[in-house]
Amino acid sequence: MPASPFSWLDEEARRRHRDGLVRTLRPRPAASDLLDLAGNDYLGLARHPEVTSAAAAAAREWGGGATGSRLVTGSTRLHAELEGELAAFCGFEAALVLSSGYAANLAAVTALAPHGTLVVSDAGNHASLIDGCRLARGTTQVVPHADPQAVRKALGTRAGPAVAVSDTVFSVDGDAAPLAGLAAACRAYGAGLVLDDAHGLGVLGAGGRGAPHAAGLAGASDVVATVTLSKSLGSQGGAVLGPARVIDHLVNTARTFIFDTGLAPAAAGAALAALRLLRREPGRAGRVRAVAAALHAGLTAEGLEAVRPDAAVVSVRAASPERAVRWAADCRAAGVAVGCFRPPSVPDGVSRLRLTARADLTDAQVDRAVRVVSAARR
Amino acid sequence: MPASPFSWLDEEARRRHRDGLVRTLRPRPAASDLLDLAGNDYLGLARHPEVTSAAAAAAREWGGGATGSRLVTGSTRLHAELEGELAAFCGFEAALVLSSGYAANLAAVTALAPHGTLVVSDAGNHASLIDGCRLARGTTQVVPHADPQAVRKALGTRAGPAVAVSDTVFSVDGDAAPLAGLAAACRAYGAGLVLDDAHGLGVLGAGGRGAPHAAGLAGASDVVATVTLSKSLGSQGGAVLGPARVIDHLVNTARTFIFDTGLAPAAAGAALAALRLLRREPGRAGRVRAVAAALHAGLTAEGLEAVRPDAAVVSVRAASPERAVRWAADCRAAGVAVGCFRPPSVPDGVSRLRLTARADLTDAQVDRAVRVVSAARR
Ligand SMILES: Cc1ncc(COP(=O)(O)O)c(C=O)c1O
Ligand SMILES: Cc1ncc(COP(=O)(O)O)c(C=O)c1O
Repeated sequence: MPASPFSWLDEEARRRHRDGLVRTLRPRPAASDLLDLAGNDYLGLARHPEVTSAAAAAAREWGGGATGSRLVTGSTRLHAELEGELAAFCGFEAALVLSSGYAANLAAVTALAPHGTLVVSDAGNHASLIDGCRLARGTTQVVPHADPQAVRKALGTRAGPAVAVSDTVFSVDGDAAPLAGLAAACRAYGAGLVLDDAHGLGVLGAGGRGAPHAAGLAGASDVVATVTLSKSLGSQGGAVLGPARVIDHLVNTARTFIFDTGLAPAAAGAALAALRLLRREPGRAGRVRAVAAALHAGLTAEGLEAVRPDAAVVSVRAASPERAVRWAADCRAAGVAVGCFRPPSVPDGVSRLRLTARADLTDAQVDRAVRVVSAARR
Repeated sequence: MPASPFSWLDEEARRRHRDGLVRTLRPRPAASDLLDLAGNDYLGLARHPEVTSAAAAAAREWGGGATGSRLVTGSTRLHAELEGELAAFCGFEAALVLSSGYAANLAAVTALAPHGTLVVSDAGNHASLIDGCRLARGTTQVVPHADPQAVRKALGTRAGPAVAVSDTVFSVDGDAAPLAGLAAACRAYGAGLVLDDAHGLGVLGAGGRGAPHAAGLAGASDVVATVTLSKSLGSQGGAVLGPARVIDHLVNTARTFIFDTGLAPAAAGAALAALRLLRREPGRAGRVRAVAAALHAGLTAEGLEAVRPDAAVVSVRAASPERAVRWAADCRAAGVAVGCFRPPSVPDGVSRLRLTARADLTDAQVDRAVRVVSAARR
C-alpha cells in the first residue's frame, strides 16, 4: 500500500507545534483540589446532590439512553416535562429539547432559514450558529460584532424573508449583545430574531430567566431562543424556545432533531432538577454576576486587561498563544484552573485567559483566584 | 407589529397535513406493556441494571454534566477509559468520544475533507454524514447507493486528496454496504475511507466488534470509523475511531468537538458498562442477528415485502405515507411498537415500517410481532 491518505495530517501537526497551537486532552480526576474557574457550571449545580440524584434516578427509571429519535421512541414524559418547565421559566410558548446546544443551534438556524432567506449573522457568533448558517439553504451575510446599525443595513439590502442570528452573551469575551437594538432592527424590516442564550440562561434576567426575558423579548412572536443545558443547568443537552408554530416546524423538519437519538434520560433529569433548584433559589443568578464583577474588579486593580463582564465570563488578554498557555499552566500549578483561548477559537486572533464565575465561589476564593492569576501573569 | 416573520410556517404545516406527513411527539411512559420493535436498543442493554447503575454511579461521582468542552474541563478519566476500551474492542488505534453520533459524523467528515478534497458520498447515507459533507470545505460527489464501481469512477475523475464516505449498515433498509469493494476502490486511488458504523457496532463482526472489524478494515491506516453509543450500547454519544494521527487532528480541528460540551459522565459510564457487558456476553451480537433473520423470515412467509436484513433492522414496504402511519398505529394498538419512516426521511420516497431486532427478544415475542404486523397490514 502507498502512504496513508491521511499522512498530510502529520504536516498539519508540525505546523501547529511550530505555531504554539497544539491542543491536548488532559483527563481530569473525579475529585481535585483545583479551584475551577474554567468550566461553565455557572450556578455550581453540576455536582449538587439534587442534580446528581435526579440524573441517577432518571437513568434507573428510564434507562441509560433514549433508544431512538425523539420521533420514534426517544421522547419520554421526562423530556416533555423538561420542555414545559423550561418554556414557562424563560417565558416562551413552547420548547424542544435536543441532545446538545450545538444541535439546537443547527436546528433553529437551518429550519428558519430555507432557500431564499437572508441570514444576518454577528461576526462573533458561536461556532454552532456559524455552522447552522453554513448548513442553512438561505444566504448568510456576516455583520460586524454587536452592531445593530449593521444589521439594519444588511436587512435593508434585500426584500424577502430574513432572520438575524446572535449570541446573547459572546462566549469568548463575555460581552452582551445589544438585544434592544437588534430587535428594533429586525422589527423595522419584519425579520425574525434568533438568539443563542447559552451563557445567559441562569445568569441574566429575573432569577436567571435569561437574556431574552431580561430584554422583554421572551414570548414575542418574532423571537426564537436557544439554550444549552450544559452550563448553568449542569447537565448536557440543548433546547429551542419559541412560538408553538416554530417548535412544531422544528419537530417536522430539523435534521439534528429528527435524525438524532433523543437526549439521555439522565441528562434530562439532571437539567430538570437544576431548573427547579434555580426557581427555588433565584439568588444564584445574582450571585454569579456579583462574583464575575468581583473577579473583573480584582484583576483590573492588578493592572490586567480584562473585559467588563456582562454575565459570568471574564476574559483577560494575553500577549501571545504561547504566553497564554504558560500563564494558564502556571495558574494551574498554583491551584487555579482557568481557560485558555487561542486561535482558531478566537475570532480576532487574540489569545486570552478565560475565567468563569460560579455562584458557589466564596469571596475568599475570588480573592485567591485574583492573586494567583495576577502573580502568574506574563 | 405586522404579521410575525414566522407566519409562513403555518402554510408549511397545512401542506404537511394535506400530504399525510405530519410528525408529532408522543411522550412515552417509563413502564409500558408494548413490545418495542421501534427503538435501536439492539442488545437490550439500555435498561440493563449494570448499565443504569453505571450511569447513576457516574453522575454521582462526576456530576450531572461535563461542565465544558473536552479541551477545557470536559474530559474526565471516564471519557479516557471509554475511548481506550472502545478503540481496543473495535480494533482501532485510537478513539475520540463526542456528545452524539451526529456530532461524531460532522467531526470526521469536516476534519478529513478540507478545501481541495473530493468527498464521494453514498446516496443512501445518514443525514449526519450528508450534513458533514455539506459543512466540509471539500467538494462532494454523491454516487448511487452501494455501488463501489461508481465510487471508483468518481475517484477517477480527479487527482488530489479524496475520501469516500458510507454507512456500513443503512439506517432505512438495514442493508449493508459493500465494504470490501469500497476499500478496494479507495485503495486503487489512494483515497481515505470513512465508515459510519452506527448500526454495525454490537451487531456485526466477532462479538459485535462492528462492520469494519468484520471486513478486516479495522485499524488500517486509511480507514476511519464512527459509531454511536446510543444504539447497541444503550446510552448517548458518539465516537470516531481511527489512526492516532486522525484522532489527534480531530482534537485540534473538529468544531463539534472543540466547541461542544463533553459527553455527560452518566452517558460515558453507561456506554462503558454496556461495552464491558458485551465483551463478557459476546453471544448478544449473534442473537440480535438471529432475531432479525427470524423477523424477516416470518414477515416474508406472510407475504410482506421485507428487505433481507444484514444487521438488526428489518424494513417492510408500505403503499403510502398515510397507510404506513395507520399500519404502525394499528400495530401499536395491538401491543407492538414499530417505526414508521416517511418522506423526507427516506431517500427514495417510499414509506416503510421499520422493525428493529433486539437480542433480548424471545422466539415467542418474535412470533407475536410477526402475527401482529402481518394482521394489521394495509
Ligand atoms: C454560545 C454557545 N452556544 C452554544 C454552545 C453549545 O452548547 P453545547 O455545549 O450544549 O453543545 C456553546 C458552548 O458549548 C456556546 O458557548
Ligand atoms: C447511520 C446513523 N448514523 C448516525 C446516527 C446519529 O447517531 P446519534 O443518534 O448518536 O446522534 C444515526 C442515528 O441516530 C444513524 O442511524
